[in-house]
This record gives sequence, C-alpha cells and structure tokens, in this order.
Amino acid sequence: MITLEHCRELDAGDPLGPMRAGFVLSPDVIYLDGNSLGPPLLGVRDRVLSTIEEWGQDLIAGWWNQDWVGLPGNVGRRLESLIGAETGSVVCADSTTVNLFKVVDASCRLTKGDLLTDSGNFPTDLYVLRTLADRWRRPLRVVEPEQLAAAITDGVGVVALGHVDFRTGRSHDLPLITARAHRVGALAVWDLSHSAGVMPIGLADNDVDYAVGCGYKFLNGGPGAPAFVYVSPRLQADTVNPITGWFGHSNPFDFSPEFVPAEGVDRMKVGTPNILSMVALDAALAIWEGVDLEVVRAKSVGLTSLFIDLVDQELGERFEVVTPRHPEHRGSQVSLRRTGAEAVVEGLGRQGVICDYRPPDIARFGFAPLYVSYVDVWESVRRIRQVT
Amino acid sequence: MITLEHCRELDAGDPLGPMRAGFVLSPDVIYLDGNSLGPPLLGVRDRVLSTIEEWGQDLIAGWWNQDWVGLPGNVGRRLESLIGAETGSVVCADSTTVNLFKVVDASCRLTKGDLLTDSGNFPTDLYVLRTLADRWRRPLRVVEPEQLAAAITDGVGVVALGHVDFRTGRSHDLPLITARAHRVGALAVWDLSHSAGVMPIGLADNDVDYAVGCGYKFLNGGPGAPAFVYVSPRLQADTVNPITGWFGHSNPFDFSPEFVPAEGVDRMKVGTPNILSMVALDAALAIWEGVDLEVVRAKSVGLTSLFIDLVDQELGERFEVVTPRHPEHRGSQVSLRRTGAEAVVEGLGRQGVICDYRPPDIARFGFAPLYVSYVDVWESVRRIRQVT
Repeated sequence: MITLEHCRELDAGDPLGPMRAGFVLSPDVIYLDGNSLGPPLLGVRDRVLSTIEEWGQDLIAGWWNQDWVGLPGNVGRRLESLIGAETGSVVCADSTTVNLFKVVDASCRLTKGDLLTDSGNFPTDLYVLRTLADRWRRPLRVVEPEQLAAAITDGVGVVALGHVDFRTGRSHDLPLITARAHRVGALAVWDLSHSAGVMPIGLADNDVDYAVGCGYKFLNGGPGAPAFVYVSPRLQADTVNPITGWFGHSNPFDFSPEFVPAEGVDRMKVGTPNILSMVALDAALAIWEGVDLEVVRAKSVGLTSLFIDLVDQELGERFEVVTPRHPEHRGSQVSLRRTGAEAVVEGLGRQGVICDYRPPDIARFGFAPLYVSYVDVWESVRRIRQVT
Repeated sequence: MITLEHCRELDAGDPLGPMRAGFVLSPDVIYLDGNSLGPPLLGVRDRVLSTIEEWGQDLIAGWWNQDWVGLPGNVGRRLESLIGAETGSVVCADSTTVNLFKVVDASCRLTKGDLLTDSGNFPTDLYVLRTLADRWRRPLRVVEPEQLAAAITDGVGVVALGHVDFRTGRSHDLPLITARAHRVGALAVWDLSHSAGVMPIGLADNDVDYAVGCGYKFLNGGPGAPAFVYVSPRLQADTVNPITGWFGHSNPFDFSPEFVPAEGVDRMKVGTPNILSMVALDAALAIWEGVDLEVVRAKSVGLTSLFIDLVDQELGERFEVVTPRHPEHRGSQVSLRRTGAEAVVEGLGRQGVICDYRPPDIARFGFAPLYVSYVDVWESVRRIRQVT
C-alpha cells in the first residue's frame, strides 16, 4: 500500500527537488504536459529582454558583438552533452520536421533500399518519410512497433524512428536497433523529441547516424522553439543537406554564387537563425549544467513507476495502462486508455492537473524530473479518481 | 546646390517623420542598414515579455488561449496588406531559404522547362535554385540582370528572381517580368526580402505566382525573424509543399498517419511555429496599420535621390554609383563602389553612420522611410566625405 507519507519521503530524498524553483510554474498547478510544452525557466525572460536591448543598441553589429552568428553551434554544444553526442556534431536550426527532411533525404542519398519506420512514429515524421520515399522511389515500410526489430533485414536502407512513442510512451531500444540497422547496411535516424532531457541517450556510444529533436518539450525552450540536428562525425563529410542555404555555406559572408558546404555539422544550417527564439532555448538549457542524466533517468523511472503503481492501487479497472510496465521500455510519460479520455483530461485541467489528450482515447501524463515531485504524482492520481 | 536647409525643409514636410519615434534607435546613430537588420519597434519588447508571461501562465493551453496556433495566418494577414496580396494567400513560416525551397520545388512540379534567374540574385536563392534544378533534372540558366527580360523565352518553366538586388539596389520590373513569364507559360517566383516594406508590390494586381520574403530587414521583425510565403489563390489547390509537416496538415491535431494538405496557403506551413520570434514580428508589423505605401515609396525615392545627388555634389569622383539613377529601377538602397569600400564602411561606423559592406568593393546604404530623415542623408554624405 503506497501512502502519501511514502511519496513525501521520496521527495525528501530527491536530489533534483530544488530544481523546480528554477521554473516559472504556479504552485497551484501540477504540470504533467512538459512532453508537449515545457514551462519557462526563470532565466529566460531576462535573457530574451537583454537580447532585445542588444538588438536595439548593436543593431546589425549584434551578429558579431553578441555572437548571434555562433549561437546555432553554441546551443548545439549544450545539446551535445545532453544527448551524448560528439563535440561538433549538433546544431540548433529550423524545426524538427525540416531537420528530419534534411537527414532522411541525406540518408537516402547514402543508401539504397527501403525506408523502414513504425506506426507509432509521430505523424510529421511519417509524412516526411512518405514524401521522401516517393521522391527517392523507394518503398516505405511501416510496421507495428513490436515487429520493428525483426523487420530490419537485408534490403532496408534507412531506419527512421521516434525514440519514445508520443502516444504510448513506449521507448525503442536505441542501441539494439541502431546496431541491427548497421548489420544490414542501413542508416539509423532517431527523433529524440520525446526523450531528450529525460534520459541519457548516448548517440556517440551507440554509433547513431543521424538524429533530430525538438527544443520545446523536455528542453523547455518555449512554444515552437528551434529544433536540433545531429550528424555523426563519421558521416559529416558525405552528408548532403538538400536545402542549400547561405548559413550552411562554408563562408556565408563571402556571398559567393557557388554553394560550398560548411565543414562538419554546420552544413545542416540553412537560413538566418532565429535569434530571439534561440536565446530562449539557450537560456533554458543552462539549467542542465552539472545535472547528471543518470539521476534524471532514475527519477523519471521513479515517477512513472509510482504513477503506474498508484493507478493500479487507486483506480482499479478505470483505465488501461498503455505504456509498457517495464521501465526499460518506456520514456518519461505514462498513457492511460479509456473511452472518454478527452473529458477526463478536461476535468483534470479544471482541478489544476494539466495533462494531454491524444485521439482517440488516450490521456497522456508526462513526468519531467526537473519540476515534477512524487507528491505531485500522488495528488494527480487522487484527482483522477475524483473526476472518473 | 543642395543645402542642409533644403533637407530640413524636406523633413518638415515629411508625413512619415513622426514614425521614427516608434523605434528604439539612438539619436547618435544614422542607421542606413535596415536592409540588413531593421531596428526594434518600441512595442516589441512588451509583446515578447507578455508572451513569455502567457507561456508561464497558460502553459500548453497558450496555443489556444493566446491563439498561437493562429499566429502564422494572422501575421500573414498583416503581410498581405503590405505586399498587395489577396486575403488568405500568405503565411509566416520558417526562413526565406526554406520557403523558397518549397515554392521553387512546387513550381517545378507544375511546369516543364528551364529554371531562369539572374546573377544578381541573393546567394541563398542561387543555391536553392541550383539544388532544385539538379533534383528536377532541369537546366538552370543564370543570366546578367540586364539580359533577363530577353531571356524569358519558350522553354523556360520557372523565373525566380530577387525583386531588388541586395548588392546593387537595382529593382526588376515585377509586372513586366511576371507578364512575360506567363506569356511563355512559365511561373514567376519573387523574393521580396529587399522590397517588402519600402514600396507597394501588388502581388495580386500583377498576377504573381509565388513569393517569399524575410521578416528582419525593412519589416523590423528582429534578428533572424521568421519569413513569409505567398501562393497565388489560383495555384493553392495544385501547390504541393515538398516538406510535409504536421502544421501543413488539414487537421494537425487529429494526429492522422496520412498527410492531407491543409486548404489554401496553410499547406505551406511545416513544423510548429516559433512563437517568441513570431510575436516580435507581429508587434513590429503593427506600425504599418494605416500607412500608405505610396507615401512610403515616395519618401524612399526622395531619400535615395537626395543621397545620389549629394554624392555627386559632395564626393566628386570618389565613388561609382552602382545603383540605377532612375528611381523606377531601384529599391530603397544605394550602393557605391570603391576599392577599399570595407574600410570606408568601418570608418563611417565609428562616426555613427551604420551601413554595410558587400564584397568585393561595395558600400551599401539602405534608406528605411519610417526612420531615416533627409537630414540623416545630408549628414551621412558629410561624414562619408570626412572618411574618404
């Protein structure tokens, strides 16, 4: 029997507990939707403000005086340590979709064979994959997540997947699938939108080829924050960005009529970087300095496990737990299935528990280890019981 | 003989004179680089601040409570009146380069025949055109600007041009070239980055097919502000956006695995819109309400003509005026050529006159009618004389 007292003890022993004070988040709110839009960090407001001031003072010279021109790479450096990537392998740029377009297109250029994904992939990823498969006249195979590993056979050229399923919270075994892809000569492309910031990812250790991810979920960069793109150092020299823009040029300020791609991952940049949004993400990422991602992952598992256990204990048969019960097979969200889930999510919102509905029947609860407590989990399950 | 007194009289009669008070711009600065990065409007700071507050309060619900989801279209509505476009023909999204990639690719899908541009086009445009020409296995013809009109012959499928040349300030005759393109069955694609906000453009009246433009030059949206894309209502139903993202879907929040393009120009959206940057642009565009673009254009011609006349009067043979002397053939910038132009630009910067150097030998002076005065023009020529 899990008690509130037990949850309080867990919070008392939580090394990440003090970090919530760094967020702008009303004490009346239990925010379980950081997998959709993370809340602002306290430092973001001042950073954006000072950037607007710098813009007014430095005007065009801000690009150099304030090193706006270096910002995509500098934000990339911060992200590299979060996702276990090599130095010089990540830039901040564009949206997740545009970045996925770039790396899947680049992957098609480097391979032959089918594109493979699973039906749990985020819709925008499925759209990009379908479009590029047609463009490259390759079959796109969409299998069930459970069949995925077995489907990586000879004849597959590109395996493109979401690391954590946005609907179910199920995670793929990134090291295993990447290794299997390589065994058949395929490239592995990962969308980290739902895993970056809640678990160690180890792109370098796992020899991942390409990755993309979004800045506004567990990275708290703000609504529609710029995204990121990873290119393995192994592949950088051979990677062709299909959208050849001046910021991906080796020397943009030469204004040369001929495109010469920049060295390394910088070639994945395209247009002029969006500075106001990018400084917000940069400021939000500062909170990760010195944070041990193993500790983050341990708390994430603690929160999601506690939630599932409390759903079992308190809610009986009211919901089906869609998310895998084994922690190794999930990210940092738990999805509950129930006809009428939308009304449950709305009712919870009125009670100060903010979660998300995903059609047709999923209530989705995201647990951001930096600002969600164990007592929050207890309290949210208590309120779910009240509204169901 | 033009006198300072004459310039003062011109300012006294300038209906746009009071608008400078809406900008954050030091009185010690003569800013002739708004064609590179416009200065902040006073209202931008508070709008961005309140958006950050809304983000903290509304969290995920901000997408609906604050209508962030409608922002790309609402900013599009503001832009439509600035560039003479039909209602529902413009959205704010991505960067200029990414938008150009979309519309040139869409143009290739709808046509056969060569791609045609001129050597004065902005480098990023040339890069995109080269890449897409290769992709569609079409020739790309790059002619000198003066040969452009004559080069629009049978066999041309897409004419893609910058409206105003970033280097020389020369403008193309948009109505004439668009009509000529249509006569040979080609589509006309215009990059308005250097013309939007300084002259009436009349996309609808001139039957333009596609256009893109940037938000951070004469539109003052901030460093790397989001860009825009125009699709003629004639073409919207047949336009295929090559980058199929969830915000271009007819119903993004159904999370459907199949891509169904949104009606109208909304299909040109891709990923989640970048709200912090987009509200800054939205706030900056508010200054255009009630502004007559014919008045703006008249002042722009007044400023650039005065500058050229004063260069002739005061600077003798020190520079070659690269920009066409006939006002109908130029945008709102004047470019002067001289060996060692870079040092001149640096020297002027130390004197508080901010302009731009473009390799190899161009000093570029942009005249934004909303905040540059006739006395500024007088004073800048006086200081050019001092440093040369």
